Amino acid sequence: MSDKERLYLYDTTLRDGVQTIGVDFSLEDKLLIAETLDALGLDYIEGGYPGANPVDTALFEHRRLYKNASFTAFGMTKRAGRSISNDPGFQDLLRAECDSVCLVAKSWDYHVRVALGITNEENLSGISESVKAVKEAGREPMVDCEHFFDGYKADKDYALSCARTAYDDGARWIILCDTNGGTLPTEIEEIVSEVTKVVPGDHLGIHTHNDTENAVANTLAAIRAGARQVQGTLNGLGERCGNANLTSIIPTLMLKSEFADRYDIGVKPEQLRTLTHASRMLDELLNRAPDRHAPYVGESAFSTKAGIHASAILKDPSTYEHVDPDLVGNQRRLLVSDQGGKSNIISELERLGIKASKDDPKLTHLLDEVKSREAGGYAYEAADASFELLARRTLGNVPRFFDVDSFRVMVERRHNAVGELVTMSEATVKVHVNGSTMMSVGEGNGPINALDTALRKDLGKYQDFIDDLELVDYKVRILTGGTDAVTRVLVESRDGKGERWFTVGVSPNIVDASFEALLDSINYKLIRDGAPAP
Amino acid sequence: MSDKERLYLYDTTLRDGVQTIGVDFSLEDKLLIAETLDALGLDYIEGGYPGANPVDTALFEHRRLYKNASFTAFGMTKRAGRSISNDPGFQDLLRAECDSVCLVAKSWDYHVRVALGITNEENLSGISESVKAVKEAGREPMVDCEHFFDGYKADKDYALSCARTAYDDGARWIILCDTNGGTLPTEIEEIVSEVTKVVPGDHLGIHTHNDTENAVANTLAAIRAGARQVQGTLNGLGERCGNANLTSIIPTLMLKSEFADRYDIGVKPEQLRTLTHASRMLDELLNRAPDRHAPYVGESAFSTKAGIHASAILKDPSTYEHVDPDLVGNQRRLLVSDQGGKSNIISELERLGIKASKDDPKLTHLLDEVKSREAGGYAYEAADASFELLARRTLGNVPRFFDVDSFRVMVERRHNAVGELVTMSEATVKVHVNGSTMMSVGEGNGPINALDTALRKDLGKYQDFIDDLELVDYKVRILTGGTDAVTRVLVESRDGKGERWFTVGVSPNIVDASFEALLDSINYKLIRDGAPAP
Repeated sequence: MSDKERLYLYDTTLRDGVQTIGVDFSLEDKLLIAETLDALGLDYIEGGYPGANPVDTALFEHRRLYKNASFTAFGMTKRAGRSISNDPGFQDLLRAECDSVCLVAKSWDYHVRVALGITNEENLSGISESVKAVKEAGREPMVDCEHFFDGYKADKDYALSCARTAYDDGARWIILCDTNGGTLPTEIEEIVSEVTKVVPGDHLGIHTHNDTENAVANTLAAIRAGARQVQGTLNGLGERCGNANLTSIIPTLMLKSEFADRYDIGVKPEQLRTLTHASRMLDELLNRAPDRHAPYVGESAFSTKAGIHASAILKDPSTYEHVDPDLVGNQRRLLVSDQGGKSNIISELERLGIKASKDDPKLTHLLDEVKSREAGGYAYEAADASFELLARRTLGNVPRFFDVDSFRVMVERRHNAVGELVTMSEATVKVHVNGSTMMSVGEGNGPINALDTALRKDLGKYQDFIDDLELVDYKVRILTGGTDAVTRVLVESRDGKGERWFTVGVSPNIVDASFEALLDSINYKLIRDGAPAP
Repeated sequence: MSDKERLYLYDTTLRDGVQTIGVDFSLEDKLLIAETLDALGLDYIEGGYPGANPVDTALFEHRRLYKNASFTAFGMTKRAGRSISNDPGFQDLLRAECDSVCLVAKSWDYHVRVALGITNEENLSGISESVKAVKEAGREPMVDCEHFFDGYKADKDYALSCARTAYDDGARWIILCDTNGGTLPTEIEEIVSEVTKVVPGDHLGIHTHNDTENAVANTLAAIRAGARQVQGTLNGLGERCGNANLTSIIPTLMLKSEFADRYDIGVKPEQLRTLTHASRMLDELLNRAPDRHAPYVGESAFSTKAGIHASAILKDPSTYEHVDPDLVGNQRRLLVSDQGGKSNIISELERLGIKASKDDPKLTHLLDEVKSREAGGYAYEAADASFELLARRTLGNVPRFFDVDSFRVMVERRHNAVGELVTMSEATVKVHVNGSTMMSVGEGNGPINALDTALRKDLGKYQDFIDDLELVDYKVRILTGGTDAVTRVLVESRDGKGERWFTVGVSPNIVDASFEALLDSINYKLIRDGAPAP
């Protein structure tokens, strides 16, 4: 047995995370996220707010059994002036099929008076009765003390009596919430420390928000002060600036000696390796691009642009990395850039699963090609798929699936029959596939869209491979570095499996540059999905 | 005089920020960002690394004078085994036109040995000689102690002797860098505290990275321990997970009593109100969507999804907000009161020299117009000229200098007579100026360039006014917020006097959007230069 103290992790992605503008989970989403959180080894999964909306109500209609996690329903303490049995909202909560119930309670006297319009005593007895009722219903009761830190500063004794009442009546956890997110680490540490004199630390939780960019630090400060339960969300999802980011907190607790030497959490090292995957899965469900710069799990978290550090990093990566990226399921990325050398490119090729020997003259050729292209405006650090294509073409054999003979794009703005100004875009493309020539025409809301439509209308035998290809994002930059301005276009594509890849095109002409990036995207997909040579 | 201690802010967006993947600033970008940082009230602006690349070299060719900030060049200490006069890189640095020079030096014995391959003593004498040479060249010397915290843990005495040497030889600031970003707040506070016993705190700076999501907290911890200079970047731009985010640190230092009661910084309250604008301007230059959830400045930082808090917030917003959003130039988004919006717009108009009274119904009309356009994808944060044009059109009289009747753009790629693939772009434009109709045709290296050429070929009596107008930069972003994707184009223009302005266009069609931004640019110049009405 370990003699370390146990810390408990409580995820509220499915409840507080939903407060984020633009976030709405379906029942299926919630079930998938809950499974992922359980597999990651979290102790509590807060599913939602039964009775508040149809999804959450449905979620708690059947008993969920998880391997590790206690499945938690969230709701308010009973309404003042009503008995438990006469409060329909509270009855919904008691009926919810779950292991534990987290009750939110006011602990700031000002809000008790202004928002609830009741007396301090009524609020206390509401907490007391509600906790007891949850316990009697056979669920583990917890109390989120809303606005605890502001409440403590306004009326310390009352805030403490709210926490103490919950504890005395059997709440397993009393969670101190920095609801407005404005408290700084020193103050969190001081106040939590004071609270441990009234409620034992192994019954105290911490719930922070990121409004000063200190949600993670505040959580760590509360642990140092004695709190033993941590509430947060995956990727820091949450209202305003987000909740405490469990995706950053979990590896810090496990990999940094200040915490790892003192505390155990439910997540095992092999589960920590799924963290990057879990984080990106959530973004996929939310249909948002993952934050490349996210601590531990971001695509760039272990990347270095070739610069003053590059050659030194190659000598000993571990002294340039605060943790080994493999431990969180992430990867080191030494970026291909015009300052990088052969070993840089070899390690990048290895990551892509392409074998290359240092003595291969083709490797020198690839390096020269990358350098000359980057000098001309290409940027492969943000266009993996174009780099992979260039590497495979230079080092080995990439089939020439099709040839584009010519294209024409026209954009016209004129007054229509009723005198309105309208703009139309039309493109024609002539392609050779497998010996036959095809001409296609497409319309679009702009020239690139028209060209893309025409190009992907008929690629003969390859059509099936690109049917699920979708353009997700398109970025244009004019580079004025050289003598003539060139346009760099970066295209992000996605397929039906949810995979994303980036391609780049460069030309003085934006249409040419876009076309090149589109062609790279199509060719990349054909290779990846094993399309046969013509 | 205030009896508070002075904290100094050091921005490294233009140097360490450029280590971010995908970030590349042009000379124009760097000048614009530096101006913004100076206007914000920062003490030091690190411009770049003279000699490292053509942009940075050009940036330091002419003396930059800023109202508040000391303009700083960055470079390495002199190479071991060379004299100062025989080190071309160091000579570049000494020749740079700047107020101060920040030297990066190794302070981890392991890196001195492995990365530099020199002895500890050689490294110390390199620091010593370099600091003296900078001082002799009439610049204020500073030393960034790279990997200081890892170095301190490996060999405390050596790390301290690096800092002490720099101090003894006259470095104004010795900056302790958590280069790998893996150190936690408690350890930062302990180590900085120890360092103050060797180098006075008012000569110590802190430079942190966000690899554990603690860059801001680490910075605050270092200040508590005695450091008096803070290095960071706007929006936390920077390698891997980013640098310490000045956009979060500045308001925390000014608005949170733990710091505001003890320290003064160079930023004044009226400058703090430009913070949101500065943050979004940087994102526009980078052609990336601003982080909605960014602390203090994010679009959602003071937004609440209608939920359990909504009605209570309406009763008393201040108890639900950790600071007043107006103080950082941001807005609450729950309340649909155009009061805040109106005063916001009035102050923006004042900045542009346009008088408007709060009671003018046209002002309400302008506010509605801005809101509806921003909902449709326009972003006036980075397009001052388009905003000014819209405001003048709504509030007063802007002459209709000319009308565009129609245009047509064609891009064609085909094989030429000798079998090469060539692309040509051609545009025709039909314009009414002062009663006469003119048709012009232009060629270009792309469709927008061809259209611009045709449009500006003949504007009749206004031709003289636009002869020195030049397109400097052109940025495109696809916005997928609504049901249909729209394209936002941002155009940067310049004239013979070196003045620069930004205009915006939005449309599903990139050519339309570009055309709108081009028209705005021309009209803005005609107004500004006092072109007569037709």
